[in-house]
Amino acid sequence: MIMADFAKRMKSMERSAGIIRGLFGTMNDPGVISFGGGAPAKEALPVDLVRMIANDVIRIDSRGVEALQYGSVLGLSDLRESVVKELLAPKGVEADSSNILITSGGLEGINLLCQLFIDPGDVILVESPTFVHCVEIFEMFQAKCVSVSMDDNGMVPEDLEEKIKLHSPKMVYVIPTFHNPTGRTLSLERRKKIAELGSNYDVIVLEDDPYRDIRYSGKDLPPIKAFDATGNTVLANSFSKIFSPGSRLGYVLASDEITSKLFDAKTATNSHTSMLPQVICAEFFKRGYYPAHHEMICGLYRERRDAMIESIDAFFPEGTKRTYPDGGLFTWAELPGGLNTTELLTESLADPDVRVAFVAGEGFYIEGNGMGNNCMRISFGSVQPERIREGAKRLGNLISKVMHRNG
Amino acid sequence: MIMADFAKRMKSMERSAGIIRGLFGTMNDPGVISFGGGAPAKEALPVDLVRMIANDVIRIDSRGVEALQYGSVLGLSDLRESVVKELLAPKGVEADSSNILITSGGLEGINLLCQLFIDPGDVILVESPTFVHCVEIFEMFQAKCVSVSMDDNGMVPEDLEEKIKLHSPKMVYVIPTFHNPTGRTLSLERRKKIAELGSNYDVIVLEDDPYRDIRYSGKDLPPIKAFDATGNTVLANSFSKIFSPGSRLGYVLASDEITSKLFDAKTATNSHTSMLPQVICAEFFKRGYYPAHHEMICGLYRERRDAMIESIDAFFPEGTKRTYPDGGLFTWAELPGGLNTTELLTESLADPDVRVAFVAGEGFYIEGNGMGNNCMRISFGSVQPERIREGAKRLGNLISKVMHRNG
Repeated sequence: MIMADFAKRMKSMERSAGIIRGLFGTMNDPGVISFGGGAPAKEALPVDLVRMIANDVIRIDSRGVEALQYGSVLGLSDLRESVVKELLAPKGVEADSSNILITSGGLEGINLLCQLFIDPGDVILVESPTFVHCVEIFEMFQAKCVSVSMDDNGMVPEDLEEKIKLHSPKMVYVIPTFHNPTGRTLSLERRKKIAELGSNYDVIVLEDDPYRDIRYSGKDLPPIKAFDATGNTVLANSFSKIFSPGSRLGYVLASDEITSKLFDAKTATNSHTSMLPQVICAEFFKRGYYPAHHEMICGLYRERRDAMIESIDAFFPEGTKRTYPDGGLFTWAELPGGLNTTELLTESLADPDVRVAFVAGEGFYIEGNGMGNNCMRISFGSVQPERIREGAKRLGNLISKVMHRNG
Repeated sequence: MIMADFAKRMKSMERSAGIIRGLFGTMNDPGVISFGGGAPAKEALPVDLVRMIANDVIRIDSRGVEALQYGSVLGLSDLRESVVKELLAPKGVEADSSNILITSGGLEGINLLCQLFIDPGDVILVESPTFVHCVEIFEMFQAKCVSVSMDDNGMVPEDLEEKIKLHSPKMVYVIPTFHNPTGRTLSLERRKKIAELGSNYDVIVLEDDPYRDIRYSGKDLPPIKAFDATGNTVLANSFSKIFSPGSRLGYVLASDEITSKLFDAKTATNSHTSMLPQVICAEFFKRGYYPAHHEMICGLYRERRDAMIESIDAFFPEGTKRTYPDGGLFTWAELPGGLNTTELLTESLADPDVRVAFVAGEGFYIEGNGMGNNCMRISFGSVQPERIREGAKRLGNLISKVMHRNG
């Protein structure tokens, strides 16, 4: 046993690290119908395309050396070009590939932005509820997280402005589209307003938008970054939902000044993102596989969303509120009758007639005062429709039973 | 232009980031014979094996889903088993795979250890000279680096103990085998002594050992970690030199307590290392490709080392001192006659009859007082033998010319 002290940041993150282990630790039991994890469907993974591409290009006379040798810090240039042309331009974001950094997954983008901006004690404003995994990152950087209220249209700009005035934050962290955990989407008007607030108060708006590309109903909205006139908004995104999460590929779009600092921080973190997945993902776009693959996965998730929403409406008790996501992998339910979802989860997993997992709501709130304890995140992305119906039915029955028991 | 302040750590790393950009920025001109970069030979990359493995296992009914889906934080279990059995046990290190974390390249291991242990102002002891890229990491963590002297047998333990007493460091950073930049190897006696000093003074010994597996002459030595009785030594290694640098795969071997904290820091950095390269590297070991590949690359580098040493001895002026590495990719030359290698490099690249690159020595010293300004790191790993002879001849002639001119 060493006696040397760990750094202060490791103490700061103990709470959130504990929550993450608790939330996601026991979700892989095959006997359980799991609405818990946030992983994409395995049917959405382009396994055959990846093999075909590897077989074509991992050759001495093709891209084999490039895929295995050291690469450039910002990432593979043709992958960065594809981001600009196929993922940003169609969404109304004009960008130059020199402002794109390829990261080791979307979370690394969040991490690198913290390296750039967060000193211990700095305030980061987050949505209430928010993605707890990012709170863990923020706490590793010894930031103080303060929550901003949300409604059905996402983060409330009036509350954001008030919190900016009150706390002089360094950063605002926002998941604008098909939000994790709630599935909500920030309205157009608010996107403009949040970009403006970032510029006017000189706060970094960290826009984490990993679900935006899997929209399967409703009208597309431009990212907050499209309304950024000053470089205060930084867009972090991921290939996890449209290509493959295990590849750990993401990207950051930032101003020249921020990109130059990101270059230094990335160099000092892991030199560059793994080349083998970068080469294969770049070819996936260059060969034009993305549009058809995208259509396939959107169809798959639309069917699952529909199955989940119909089942919740059919099987959950009256008084249940749920969101209707136009994309992404999650819905969020608020249960009536003072039910505690943490207790419900324990009972659900223990009852041989139920055994349905979800994520209890309270872990997504940084307030820690019981907020969200009647809420649940319900993930439908990785469950087949008939299992969704069966799981929602079992869970709905359990909820009714518990409500009845509680009187 | 944003007005928001960057974090203090970005200011701390400006000096070292500038050195790295300067050192490695302009090394890819095909008209130059480059002894500059530290990349492995492209002939040492297992391009055909990687394609074959991908073609076999990236299938729905094999490891395709595993390679593309989210994975576990510590890394793929069969890859961790291979580390234990094929890379550690033969070197005299007994380890359990639960103490192995697979990282996104060797540098990420260094970075994560800093996350665990370094608060701003903490002292890290480093060799003089040392690997400047790691100094950049240390400065990102706002550590204060203090140098410990080296001789032909590596870091000098007497000076290390004195500096420990003087500075109460949190960490000692040491590259024991075929050291970057000098090619020197820490003696057996000193390995024992440094492990002991870590334990006795409760300092973390960060053993960075990415070259150790490419030994092509001399007798193998156990890592410092083999002599660690208390868990104070942490071994960070890389697959870059034995498999592929572009894959960004490395590993850390640490005590239970440290591994548990590494789990949290890795989660908050990028969740886990990319699965596609992990699956392929795991199969590379499981299928038994490593021993023959290892023999091939050792033969290749031995030939290049021999060509370089013979050429330096033949073409560099009398009074030149150089190291004789038993492995790795570098030798280190100290030039006579008060020559300044930074100026020499400029002249070498500008002279159409020379155009040979190397890395000038002074950037590897944190002292910044002119130390190493008559030294050069000479990398022979990625240059074919006939080009090594030609390059060393041209460079030797230039050195003689400059010495003659200087009188």
